[in-house]
Amino acid sequence: MTRAELIQQIHAKQSFLCVGLDTDLDKIPAHLLDFEDPIYEFNRAIVEATSPFTIAYKPNIAFYERLGSKGWDTLKKTLEIIPDHCFTIADAKRGDIGNTSKYYADTFFKYMDFDSVTVAPYMGEDSVTPFLEYDNKWVIVLGVTSNKGALDFQMLPVEGRPLFHHVIERSSSWGTANNMMFVAGATRGELLAQVREIVPDHFFLVPGVGAQGGSLEEVVRFGKNADVGLLVNSSRGIIYADKGLDFARHAAIEAERLQSDMKSALNELNFRP
Amino acid sequence: MTRAELIQQIHAKQSFLCVGLDTDLDKIPAHLLDFEDPIYEFNRAIVEATSPFTIAYKPNIAFYERLGSKGWDTLKKTLEIIPDHCFTIADAKRGDIGNTSKYYADTFFKYMDFDSVTVAPYMGEDSVTPFLEYDNKWVIVLGVTSNKGALDFQMLPVEGRPLFHHVIERSSSWGTANNMMFVAGATRGELLAQVREIVPDHFFLVPGVGAQGGSLEEVVRFGKNADVGLLVNSSRGIIYADKGLDFARHAAIEAERLQSDMKSALNELNFRP
Repeated sequence: MTRAELIQQIHAKQSFLCVGLDTDLDKIPAHLLDFEDPIYEFNRAIVEATSPFTIAYKPNIAFYERLGSKGWDTLKKTLEIIPDHCFTIADAKRGDIGNTSKYYADTFFKYMDFDSVTVAPYMGEDSVTPFLEYDNKWVIVLGVTSNKGALDFQMLPVEGRPLFHHVIERSSSWGTANNMMFVAGATRGELLAQVREIVPDHFFLVPGVGAQGGSLEEVVRFGKNADVGLLVNSSRGIIYADKGLDFARHAAIEAERLQSDMKSALNELNFRP
Repeated sequence: MTRAELIQQIHAKQSFLCVGLDTDLDKIPAHLLDFEDPIYEFNRAIVEATSPFTIAYKPNIAFYERLGSKGWDTLKKTLEIIPDHCFTIADAKRGDIGNTSKYYADTFFKYMDFDSVTVAPYMGEDSVTPFLEYDNKWVIVLGVTSNKGALDFQMLPVEGRPLFHHVIERSSSWGTANNMMFVAGATRGELLAQVREIVPDHFFLVPGVGAQGGSLEEVVRFGKNADVGLLVNSSRGIIYADKGLDFARHAAIEAERLQSDMKSALNELNFRP
């Protein structure tokens, strides 16, 4: 998906919501366990119910990988039922030396047809650039994360600025705002503002709104740019909104609630096609 | 596998060689392509031929993942034919927030039965510690890597020392020398010496001897400790030593050549059980 197409979707749906498909056998409604592939059935219902309000879906690969080859089949089948007009993110946090990263890129961009993959930056340029060699595909580099462990290394002082400033600044030189995004943790608004200053044009994938505790209003205030520039993720708050027979309807209600807040925010920003 | 068992293997085989199973359909002997699972057949022959000289095997997960669910089945089957007395490393470079890292740990320690998994440190403590909750399993944290991109972030100055010093120092406090190792790139001996000074007791996984250019003599000189403390990996130099019908014999010759050098090094160190 191109940047123009992504922005067009934001306009069309008045939404910058990403739904995280962190689908867990232990958490889905019990009646689904009778199906041959309960995770697929769950995902299918969730995608169908939420796609009017959603511009992106983000399966976290760990949830599929732990089921081995069966999980990989479920992931591939899930990807195939996500509508083409939705942006897809393989939340894989991969990264290895050049020829190996190329194979990870093959996995998510060729064997599967994701639009983007999240990548860890510790190994530097040659671990990231192999993901940039595909047309209309995106790499989403971990910039600053919302977990407690983000304090361990991302905040270490390097030449008077936290490490994550350097990571984002340098990584941004390897690609463009048309093929690279950054993960920018949402729980601290002033951090988002710092990232926005370093990379004014890039899109951010913002985890942590909802169950992880970030505020949408703060994310928009500190993280927006002229093209909105935000994909705001919610996983558990949407997909596990209810565990009964009509779980999908409840997921849709939660997704619509967030989309409605996003629509208001876009109106306040006077964001027009 | 416990540390004592690992050290006992080093004594028994007079070797600290790890063979990297970076098995690539494009590089294996052509006659294997007639088998239903060529990668498995290749791995089986390589493991059988090299295991007398080898104490560890390290499949790089990207090479299997790119083949989707079939690749995961091949990986699982490969793991099952590696002798129990060999240490197994899932070279996966995973790392995510806590509950997700737990699922990655489940993947490699429960769904499969690897002894260890490589982990990227950028997300900090809660991305690493879930891997430490399994008895007799190991996490191998990326400390300093041998690729060109290692210069991008790992060497950035933090309080007068390169970032990787802090990463190794702080990570080492989350586990012990009995459940944590570090990836320590081999192409620069003085870096190995620095890592050894920070963590005198830990084992290092040293990639980059052979095709990636490191010298075994230098690795031993700068990296050893009282328990040897080294797993030295070679992938392409061994597994692709020859592409003919007797590829496995040639792999064994290369493995034995390295093992013989290691035996000499152990003798020079006066390393005795």
